[in-house]
Amino acid sequence: MIHKQVPIGVSARHIHLSQAHVELLFGEGYGLTEMKPLSQPGQYAANESVEVIGPKGSFPKVRILGPARKGTQLEVSRTDAFALGVNPPVRESGNTAGSAGIKIKGPAGEIDIEEGVIVAARHIHFHTTDAEKFGIADKQLLRVRFGGERGVVFEQVVARVSEQYALDMHIDTDEANAAGVKNGDIGEIID
Amino acid sequence: MIHKQVPIGVSARHIHLSQAHVELLFGEGYGLTEMKPLSQPGQYAANESVEVIGPKGSFPKVRILGPARKGTQLEVSRTDAFALGVNPPVRESGNTAGSAGIKIKGPAGEIDIEEGVIVAARHIHFHTTDAEKFGIADKQLLRVRFGGERGVVFEQVVARVSEQYALDMHIDTDEANAAGVKNGDIGEIID
Repeated sequence: MIHKQVPIGVSARHIHLSQAHVELLFGEGYGLTEMKPLSQPGQYAANESVEVIGPKGSFPKVRILGPARKGTQLEVSRTDAFALGVNPPVRESGNTAGSAGIKIKGPAGEIDIEEGVIVAARHIHFHTTDAEKFGIADKQLLRVRFGGERGVVFEQVVARVSEQYALDMHIDTDEANAAGVKNGDIGEIID
Repeated sequence: MIHKQVPIGVSARHIHLSQAHVELLFGEGYGLTEMKPLSQPGQYAANESVEVIGPKGSFPKVRILGPARKGTQLEVSRTDAFALGVNPPVRESGNTAGSAGIKIKGPAGEIDIEEGVIVAARHIHFHTTDAEKFGIADKQLLRVRFGGERGVVFEQVVARVSEQYALDMHIDTDEANAAGVKNGDIGEIID
C-alpha cells in the first residue's frame, strides 16, 4: 500500500481579474506585474491589489493572483463572506454562474460584478504522473485526513488532474484553522 | 445499531469572567444580568459585553456568558486570534494554565490578564442518560461526521458527561464554516 500524501496550500482571500477589469480598475492598457510565483506553474501573486466592498463590510487590500483570466472571480472564506455581508456558494474555480456579486475598487476606477464571488471548494491539484501513481481520476471526490489535536477528515475534496499542475491541496483559511494546519503541512488521501 | 446523533451549537467568540473581574470592569458590587438562556442549564448570555484588545487588533463588543466563574476565560477562533495578534492554545474549558493573555476593557475599568485566552477544544456535552444510551464515557475522544458539500469528520471531540448537561456539540466559527454547518444542524458520532 502506498501512502498518498499531499502538501497543503492555504488560500487566503484573493481575486482573479479579467484583462478588461484590470484595465477598468488600473487604467487602459495596464498589465498585472508579478510579485512572486505560486505553487501552480505560471501562476503568481501580483504586486497589485484591490478593495472589495460588500453591503456590510470591506477589505481594503485583496491580493490579485495573475495572470489575467477569462472571468473575474473573488474567492473568500465563509468568515470573510459574513464580514462582507454576501452569501457566495461553495464552487469549483471557474464555475461562477449565479454566484454572489460585489463592488471592486482600484486606483483608476470601480466596478460592480453581478456574479464571481465564491467560497472555493476544497481541491487537490495533481500532475498527471501523481494521479497515475495514486490511481486517481480527474473530478474524483476524495477524503483527506489530517491528524493532530484538531484532527479532521475533509470529504468532498475534488481531484483536478493536469500536466500543468503541481501536487498541492488547496483549502481556505476557515478550513486550515478548523484543522489546525498551515502551509506545507501534509495530509493523507484515505480513499 | 443506534444512530448517535447530536445537535450542533456554534460558539462565537465569548468571555467568562470571575466575579472579581466583573467588579473591576463594571464597578464594585456589580452583577451580570441575563439576556437569554443558553443550551446548557443555568448558563446565559449576559446583557453586558467587554472590549478585548490584543497587540494587533481588538473586538469592541465581546459577549459575556454568565454566571460569573472561578476564572476569567476568553474563547476565540483561530481566525480571531490572528486578528488580535495572540497565539492561544487549543484547550478544554477551564484548562488555562500557560495560555495567552489579553487586555479587557469595561465601562468602569480595564485589566490585563496573563493567561485565560484559549481556542476551545471541540466537545460534546452529554447528559448522563445520553451518555449511557450511546455507551460513551466522560473524557472519551470521539469522531463526529457531518455530510453535505463541505462534508467533514471531526476527530478529537471531547466527551463531557454530567447530570448538569444537555446534549449539544460545541464547535467554533472556523469549524462551523469549514464544515458548512450552523446552529441546530445534526452530526453523527461514528465512534
